[in-house]
Amino acid sequence: MVRQSELELNTEGNGQMTDITAEVSRAAEESGIKDGIVTVFVPGATGAVTTIEYESGLVKDFAELMERLAPQGKDYAHNARWGDGNGHSHLRASLLGPSLTVPLTDGALALGTWQQIVFVDFDTRARMRNLIVQIVGE
Amino acid sequence: MVRQSELELNTEGNGQMTDITAEVSRAAEESGIKDGIVTVFVPGATGAVTTIEYESGLVKDFAELMERLAPQGKDYAHNARWGDGNGHSHLRASLLGPSLTVPLTDGALALGTWQQIVFVDFDTRARMRNLIVQIVGE
Amino acid sequence: MVRQSELELNTEGNGQMTDITAEVSRAAEESGIKDGIVTVFVPGATGAVTTIEYESGLVKDFAELMERLAPQGKDYAHNARWGDGNGHSHLRASLLGPSLTVPLTDGALALGTWQQIVFVDFDTRARMRNLIVQIVGE
Repeated sequence: MVRQSELELNTEGNGQMTDITAEVSRAAEESGIKDGIVTVFVPGATGAVTTIEYESGLVKDFAELMERLAPQGKDYAHNARWGDGNGHSHLRASLLGPSLTVPLTDGALALGTWQQIVFVDFDTRARMRNLIVQIVGE
Repeated sequence: MVRQSELELNTEGNGQMTDITAEVSRAAEESGIKDGIVTVFVPGATGAVTTIEYESGLVKDFAELMERLAPQGKDYAHNARWGDGNGHSHLRASLLGPSLTVPLTDGALALGTWQQIVFVDFDTRARMRNLIVQIVGE
Repeated sequence: MVRQSELELNTEGNGQMTDITAEVSRAAEESGIKDGIVTVFVPGATGAVTTIEYESGLVKDFAELMERLAPQGKDYAHNARWGDGNGHSHLRASLLGPSLTVPLTDGALALGTWQQIVFVDFDTRARMRNLIVQIVGE
């Protein structure tokens, strides 16, 4: 069986991290699938998905890590060519990746106690984002 | 249902990025599977797969990011031991990852408009590469 | 069909890398599934999974890469708030990611000859870790 859901998120961008664990969990419950895998996917080139212990300290630390690895203020060829100033957003998203796959066991996501699924919007403006939750199993 | 395809690519290596979106999309179409997930996998330790807006500015910016994170010229223990000079290739591949999973919906990959699937060959020589496209769904 | 296994690992932490290829391969064999995908997942926020050529040179090089990207000795807000001194462990795990998906073909993992699946325990203490191997296929 395959079931798909969409998550709608309003995000501020600029690296804002959103805890989407409850939404992904609800999508899994509503699918009726008990055992399988849940793929969370970002259909866009300036957002990414990963897991983290979602607490304010790490949210800040993660933002600083991204700024060290791919600083916003660097001269990027993307910015020179397209003028939208989001070269760093693209690089961070490609580095982290648009896709996460989590096992589903007896209807529950196989996450650790202190592990949340997060969407990170690296783009430079607020917008409405659609994520895809694809569930394959039985 | 499970369907597998192989993609053959001739790449130059040295971080060359290849847009494989059309090839993955065709593999999905030919599978006959309409809804499910598509896993693109690199069977090798010096290549990786991710998504990006595939345009020449970001291709250049991404190559520079990789050079900053894992410089080619550093003294790597891998190079000292094996002498093949591709320690940086291995590190970049492990960091980015060999696997990408994309939802398939009504026969189409759930990618954003400006989001392409790319293979990055970090190794130091040209060669023929085989990627695997594994499709699971119904 | 969906089959799940758990891998139990005793790790030292502090970035220790463990080659789990044989264990994942055995889980695939025991599942009875011939073709599909194998997802290896870390249920925890301080460990990650990727592939690498598992040899002592790269094991050392990879540890040094992680130390450059997210140094242990930095002032992290997570450490200031929670006092457990593992801010760098969380960042490295989120950057690398908790999930890996590998195609399964005629009962065999579609890995390259010099490509191993590794678990990296970034936390700061030894412990027993459970990983999940979820296999979907036919």
